[in-house]
Parts: sequence; C-alpha cells; structure tokens
Amino acid sequence: MKIDNGIVRIGVIGVGNMGSEHCRNLYAGKCPEIALVSVADLRHERRQWAAKHLHGVKIYETGRELIQSKNCDAVIICVPHFTHESLTVEALEAGLHVLCEKPISVTASAARNMIQSAEKSGKTLAIMFNQRTNCLYRGIHHLLHSGEMGNIKRVNWIVTDWYRTQRYYESGSWRSTWAGEGGGVLLNQCPHQLDLLIWLCGMPQNVKAVCHEGKWHNIEVEDDVSVYFEFPGGATGVMVTSTGDLPGTNRLEIDCEKGKIVCEDGLVRCWRLRENEREICFSSDNPWYQAESTISVIKTDGLNLQHIGVMNSFAAHLLRDEPLTADAYDGFREIQLSNAIYLAGWTGEKITVPANEKEFIRRLEQKISISQRKEYKDYTYETNHEGTGALHQ
Amino acid sequence: MKIDNGIVRIGVIGVGNMGSEHCRNLYAGKCPEIALVSVADLRHERRQWAAKHLHGVKIYETGRELIQSKNCDAVIICVPHFTHESLTVEALEAGLHVLCEKPISVTASAARNMIQSAEKSGKTLAIMFNQRTNCLYRGIHHLLHSGEMGNIKRVNWIVTDWYRTQRYYESGSWRSTWAGEGGGVLLNQCPHQLDLLIWLCGMPQNVKAVCHEGKWHNIEVEDDVSVYFEFPGGATGVMVTSTGDLPGTNRLEIDCEKGKIVCEDGLVRCWRLRENEREICFSSDNPWYQAESTISVIKTDGLNLQHIGVMNSFAAHLLRDEPLTADAYDGFREIQLSNAIYLAGWTGEKITVPANEKEFIRRLEQKISISQRKEYKDYTYETNHEGTGALHQ
Repeated sequence: MKIDNGIVRIGVIGVGNMGSEHCRNLYAGKCPEIALVSVADLRHERRQWAAKHLHGVKIYETGRELIQSKNCDAVIICVPHFTHESLTVEALEAGLHVLCEKPISVTASAARNMIQSAEKSGKTLAIMFNQRTNCLYRGIHHLLHSGEMGNIKRVNWIVTDWYRTQRYYESGSWRSTWAGEGGGVLLNQCPHQLDLLIWLCGMPQNVKAVCHEGKWHNIEVEDDVSVYFEFPGGATGVMVTSTGDLPGTNRLEIDCEKGKIVCEDGLVRCWRLRENEREICFSSDNPWYQAESTISVIKTDGLNLQHIGVMNSFAAHLLRDEPLTADAYDGFREIQLSNAIYLAGWTGEKITVPANEKEFIRRLEQKISISQRKEYKDYTYETNHEGTGALHQ
Repeated sequence: MKIDNGIVRIGVIGVGNMGSEHCRNLYAGKCPEIALVSVADLRHERRQWAAKHLHGVKIYETGRELIQSKNCDAVIICVPHFTHESLTVEALEAGLHVLCEKPISVTASAARNMIQSAEKSGKTLAIMFNQRTNCLYRGIHHLLHSGEMGNIKRVNWIVTDWYRTQRYYESGSWRSTWAGEGGGVLLNQCPHQLDLLIWLCGMPQNVKAVCHEGKWHNIEVEDDVSVYFEFPGGATGVMVTSTGDLPGTNRLEIDCEKGKIVCEDGLVRCWRLRENEREICFSSDNPWYQAESTISVIKTDGLNLQHIGVMNSFAAHLLRDEPLTADAYDGFREIQLSNAIYLAGWTGEKITVPANEKEFIRRLEQKISISQRKEYKDYTYETNHEGTGALHQ
C-alpha cells in the first residue's frame, strides 16, 4: 500500500468544467476513501465558486501552491492539456500521487516525461479514462479476452455523439485553438474511444486519417475525423468522430473469427458462430455460405460509475494495491495513437504507430505558430455525467 | 414507344449463375411483357442445361449468333464483365435494346463507348441495378429528395454481408483474377451499393481507399475495402465492404442537417429534428445541446422485386416509355466511381472523381499482365434471390 492512514487526502487543481464536477462528487461523499482537502484555480471567479460551495476546503491560486502546501497525499489535475505535464511532474516530485484528466498530455514526448517522473518518484500516475468503468465496455473486454470469439478481424466505430454547439468552443479562450488546447475532437472528446479501442482490440500498427478543421464550427482545430486503422494481427478498423452531428451515433462493431459484437443503444449484442469463419471459408463447398449464429444480449453487472469509479479505484490502489482503472501507460498509448492520427491527417500519409515524435511536434508547433488566440469570455459550465450542462456563469 | 407489338422478345446471352436465374424467371412467366426466345452460352454444359429446362427457346453458342439471328428485340447480357462492352455494342448496332448486368463494364472508357453506341443507334441501354427496386432504398431516396431532411452531412455504410467462401472464387476460371474479371468485391458485389450511394447522396468528388487483395481468400483481387468519400456539398462518407466477414453487416446511416436515417435489419428508421442543426449550432447557448428528435420507422410499399422488377421496367420502358430502373448513365457513373476507388487504393492518393481514365487503364493493365489465370473447374451455381446457392454441376 502507498498510503496507510485509511484515507486519501486529495487536492483538485483546476476547478473549471471537469474539476468542479469532481469536487462536487467528492464533497458530496461519493468517494468515501477520499477527503477533498484543497483546490486551486488561477481564476478569481472559480475560487469564489469553491469558497461558496466547498466549505472547509483550502483554496489556492496556483497548482504549485497547492502542491507545496503539503496537506494532501494526491492531486487530481483538471487544467488545460498543455499544463498536465508540468503540474504532474511537479506533484510527483513533491511526493504526491496523481490522477490526471485525459488526455495525459498533448504529445507522447510529454507523456514519456510524466511516466519517467512517476517511475523515479515511485508514486502513482493514473489517468481519468472514466469510460472504462462502463459495464458495456467491460463486458466486451471480458468477452474478447475470454478467447471465445477468436481473433478480431474488423472494428467499426461511429462516435458522432459528441455534439457541441459553437457556444461550447467559446467557453474558454484556450479551447479549440492549437496554441491553447493543441487539438480538437481527437484530443478533447475522443481520447476515451481511442483508449477503449486500444484496451479492447490492441494497439494499431498504422493509421490513415482525414481531419477536417473547423468543418462545422468556427474553430481552427479539427471537429470531424475519419480514421482507418491496421492492427498487427491483420485486423482493420474505421473510426468516425465529430462534434457536428445531431443526433449523433455511438455504435461499435467488432467482427471476430467466431462472430461479431455490436454495442449500440446501451446494449451489447453478440452473434456467435458454431465454427471459426477462417475454417468455414476453406472447407465449405457452399459458395454463398450463410451463418447460423445465435444472437444474445450480453449480461453485464449494470454498473457505470464513470469519474466516481475512477476516483474510487485510485484510492483503492493507494490504500490496498487494487488495480487502477487506467494507468500512465494507458494514457501514453492513447496519446501515441492520437499523435499518429494527427500526423496521418496532416500529411495524408499512412503513419506507423508510434509516430515520429519530433515530426509530430514540429508540425504541431507550425500550427501553434499561426494559431489565433481567442478573445472569448471565459464561460464555465456545470457538467453532469450525461455530458449536458447548464451555463454556470 | 420503342416496341409496338405488345411484347418484348428477349435473348439472354450467358446462362451461368445470373443468366440462368433470369431465364428461370422469364420462363416461369414472372415478366408477362417479356418472351424469352433465345439464349446463348459458350459452354456446352450450359447449352445442355438450357435445352433441358427451356423448351422452345432457341439456343446459340455465341452471343453474336444470337444477336444476328434477328429473332429478338432485346438482349440481356450476363457474361463476364470484360465482354459487356463488345456484346452490348454489337447488339445495339444490330438494332437491339440491351439490359446489361452490373457492372456496366470494367472501365469508364468502355462504358463511354457503350453509351455512344446506344445514342448512335437510338436503342435503349439499361443496367441491372436490381437493388434499386428494394422498398427500403426507394423509401430513403424519397425521403432525401423530399428536402425534409435538409442537406446530407455524412454517410456511413458497412456492407460486409457479401460473404463468400473460397469455393465461390473457384466457380469460374475468370473469377477473382485481374485478367478474367478485372477486380474483386468492388467490381463484382459492391456496384450495387456504389450505385445506390450515388443515387441517394450524389456523386462524390473525391475518394481515398484501402483495398486489400487476397486478404481473406486465396485470390489475387481485393476482398476487403475501406473507402472515404467527399461530396461536393461538403458531406463525407465511409464505406467498408468485404467478402470475408461472417455474419456480416449491412447498415447504412445518412446524417442530415435535420436528422438522420439508419437502414439496417430490413427497416429504415428516421430521427427528425425540430430545427436545422446548422442553425442550432450557432444560435443555442447550450454548449452540450441535446437533440429532441422524433424517431419513426419509414413506411414503404413493401415491394422488393429485384431482377424481375428491373426486367419488367425494361419492358415497360420499351413498350410504354415508362422509366427504367437504371439507365446507361447510372452504370457509367457507378463505374467512374469504382475506377476512382481502385486508383485511390492502388496509389494511396486522394483521387478526384472521375479519375484519369488512362491512368486507371495503365495500372489495371499492369495488374492484368501479371495475373495468374486459374485452372479451376467451371462450377455453375443456381442462384436465388437471397444470394444463397446450391451447387449445380
């Protein structure tokens, strides 16, 4: 165990959209093994929000002050992506464990630094991949890893239920700019699905992609992406994501040698073949063989604890060595894949995963150099689990 | 009207898999305005089949003999794709109307010759795009063209229900070779969906594609294809097709400004928004706007006449100027798109549609020059409408 006093004292750095949600959950006692002791935010109005809603919690202006205050065991980092690296490293070096919001960082290079810092310090670095807690994805993971379905042959994932209005992109001057955020739907919304794809199907070995920038919104980053994957075992995949489709779709199909799995509308359905298709193909004398498959809805435990589940497993890991929902290596692989998709989109080339990190950074810096920092008002929204939000101020 | 004696006397050239099905339908009287008068096939055993099953029908060895016999008004051409052009031109020049199996040809150049020949002769050239008769696609076509859904924004079509075993590819020495067939799933199975895509959504302006050759079967042509489309109006699309997935999927999703349409499992469902998303995006002050949409199953006439429907409309066109199911220009556009997808796959480049015809032919001829003509037995299968088949001989 890494903490032996039975409770994890936690500080939340950044109490904007996501950070404030974590604070509300912790303050409401939804994570009984975590005590929220401090928060930090650079913005005066967010500290005012904390003072009003989080009685007894220490409030700092900077993450550094919070880290150096020595009153917590761990921090949750909920600041714009570009500052994940420096705050995480600072916290780890100060002897704190870290739960970092997704994506772990903007570049794989930064993630590597963070991991090295975690390894050097011996402290835990976990990533907020809350969608791993969804019973549907856990059910698919279990099914695929049972071996019952045979090898994966194809993945199709339509993830177009990330709808955002123009107003969303105006909710922070850093948002949806190359300089402030470093990317769009791939970096902000889709890390969840990229992580799940790797978790469920393994790491692709190369990618092709088309990334449309500002296709549906007045933004400089991408809001519409089509990706083609190739996996080491020969499987291929397609993922389509956008923040411009209404009503969107979230439909994951995984085709295997012994059947297929479809996750849509809150259900996982499984088609099971009696035989392995790879054997049928070469043994059947029916040119138009039709499958006799049984279709069933996968039973799950029904649990979908999202951020609360990730925070609870973080605490359980620190207190009792239980497994994390997702660790730093998961975050690293996700951003490696993400970087490769960007590079594929920017170059039009097929890109091997992991991508050339220097080339990715060189091209990102080109984008940043011509990025127009916005002059929008800093709106902050109250987010709930469904992803809807009400204007907070 | 082009024929004034109340009935179309027809000859079927090629009575293999598809040609024999058309003969059975015609012989059984399923097309009351068509009289089957003659058939031709180069293979002795197929002429024997005709002699046994088609009493009173004249039997020729070559298409030329049938065409020159002067005993029919029109022909249905059901021979390997590469000979569509010469037989069609010969029939048109002999004053016959032509219904040609899909694809119209292997190259857009050949299709252009066929169209010029039709225009010069004043005779009708129709294409066997039998899936246009499906009430589901007709329902979608009606809905999209009513304007009710607004502009199309995205198309996702998973067409992996073209499963074929290795035995299928051994059912003809010409099959699944560059020299004999000129392509694989894109040219043989998927012309239907490419035609429907153009019919429903318009012609893409450019494409990217990955075409895997011999991925799931021992064949030299492609059996697994992922295509990315861009349409002139800004919509994008993805189509995935394969003959190696079991059980496959056929799911078409079309996202529009005012809702989405999903065709799967024999149903067309439609999500209708109250407002146009393009207006919501820039007028809503909710960053995470969620759609209030009504979902309904589209009512259709339930008819799905397939090949019989195409033949009946061909006769009705010749007898009473009624519209064809699909004409030569539809066939031409489909093969233009198909050629562009091949070129995109072969080069790894984004290809403008229509593609450079000379470049396509140059690369196809390279493939043909190293093609291995197979020494397989000529199996012929009885095909039924569901696409299943029983070994015939």
